Amino acid sequence: MPNSATAKRPASDGAAALAAFAGELADLARPIVRSYFRTPVGVEWKADASPVTAADRAVERALREAIAARFPDHGVLGEEEAAVGIDRPVVWVVDPIDGTKSFMTGLPLFGTLIAAVVDGRPEVGVIDAPALGDRWVGIAGAGARFNGVPCRTSAAARLGEARLYATSPDMFTAEESAAFAALADKVALRRFGGDCYAYGLLASGHVDLVVEADLKPYDFMALVPVVEGAGGVITDWRGAPLTIGSGGQVVAAANAALHAAALQELAPAAG
Amino acid sequence: MPNSATAKRPASDGAAALAAFAGELADLARPIVRSYFRTPVGVEWKADASPVTAADRAVERALREAIAARFPDHGVLGEEEAAVGIDRPVVWVVDPIDGTKSFMTGLPLFGTLIAAVVDGRPEVGVIDAPALGDRWVGIAGAGARFNGVPCRTSAAARLGEARLYATSPDMFTAEESAAFAALADKVALRRFGGDCYAYGLLASGHVDLVVEADLKPYDFMALVPVVEGAGGVITDWRGAPLTIGSGGQVVAAANAALHAAALQELAPAAG
Repeated sequence: MPNSATAKRPASDGAAALAAFAGELADLARPIVRSYFRTPVGVEWKADASPVTAADRAVERALREAIAARFPDHGVLGEEEAAVGIDRPVVWVVDPIDGTKSFMTGLPLFGTLIAAVVDGRPEVGVIDAPALGDRWVGIAGAGARFNGVPCRTSAAARLGEARLYATSPDMFTAEESAAFAALADKVALRRFGGDCYAYGLLASGHVDLVVEADLKPYDFMALVPVVEGAGGVITDWRGAPLTIGSGGQVVAAANAALHAAALQELAPAAG
Repeated sequence: MPNSATAKRPASDGAAALAAFAGELADLARPIVRSYFRTPVGVEWKADASPVTAADRAVERALREAIAARFPDHGVLGEEEAAVGIDRPVVWVVDPIDGTKSFMTGLPLFGTLIAAVVDGRPEVGVIDAPALGDRWVGIAGAGARFNGVPCRTSAAARLGEARLYATSPDMFTAEESAAFAALADKVALRRFGGDCYAYGLLASGHVDLVVEADLKPYDFMALVPVVEGAGGVITDWRGAPLTIGSGGQVVAAANAALHAAALQELAPAAG
């Protein structure tokens, strides 16, 4: 059921144009990612605990070239190459392949994340799942869409009815792990292994909570307009808005009531 | 790279016919499952720690009716209804929706599992992923196929190069969890959250180890011909073949060397 209790802030004038270009970037990335998926090319995981693939680099290169060609005065923050102009009014934050472990094991849940950050606030976010052909797009103040159709978060307001996701128990410190366990004990269902796709499922009302840690700005900036646009709430574990400077703790909830309940459980480990 | 070190046992005369019928059963199940996916209909998880959905029951009913119509002298063991004739020479073992938590949260990784067990041995196995349109079929002595194309497990023979999956850390007892952790410490990559799809990825060479516990016969019997047909090894944690009477501990490996290495780590908790 849709949740209409969340206030929206007005969309900036240029947000629609930025969203259109973000879609073009996702269209550009998708065939490149697919061309590497389930092939042995370029996988370097044996030498690196944080897997980096040739696909990651090829996609980020293509995205940076497209951004530089279209908006030479915009900044870019990505996973693979050095940041460019992140003090500029508009900064693109991109993660070519979020969920590299999924990508490298043939699991189609990984995604390409693209955010347009305007004056420090994420205005546009895209979660694209190249192998599944699924895409969530969110625009601050103008809602979120799944494959072109408006989507809404669920109305689940109590922890006891919430479906909770986290990508892996390995992302938590001991203190975070204890807080996460306390939260998980109170929810209806907990599942590991969602990557960015779990935030999309939350935006579509199928998942009610996603709680993670140890994330980088390129892992979470694109999620904000999608989750908020769909009526959800996404912050760090202290309840503060996510910015490029945020720490890695992220909590996304279907609505404000569930968000408040989750924050209470996570407070002992909120950094 | 294909692994050709695993000996095959000859296919039984009737295996091809059983496999063809197993495919018909998966074809029958797929649209029913899809009709319930990402809809609120019939989800009963609030009242049941092991989620049961209307979709589960509808699919199992359809499968049982089809089996009874075609092979009235065969037995059936399923998740939802009472077993019928499991002492008969041919027994169908079916799980309408393996990965119910995935199904209920909109994640497309769940699968329909169908096995034909002949004289106690799983001769034919089907792992069908209705939402993804993916299907693995294995026939004892006659190989395995992914979407109609022969597939092979990887040649990764050392734990240090292995990609390990388990559906959830919650499936292990404390003792099992310790053994799993010891194993996980030695592999290249560990990921939670695969459901039956992880065994398919193993059969296709993208995953090298799947280690789970607390499984039921309908969770694992269909996996055996797929994994073995693709060149892999699948047993309980003691190394014994999986039968309808097996305990819930399952280890699947890309090849015999990796299987032996995994068994050694799991031995302290092998039941």
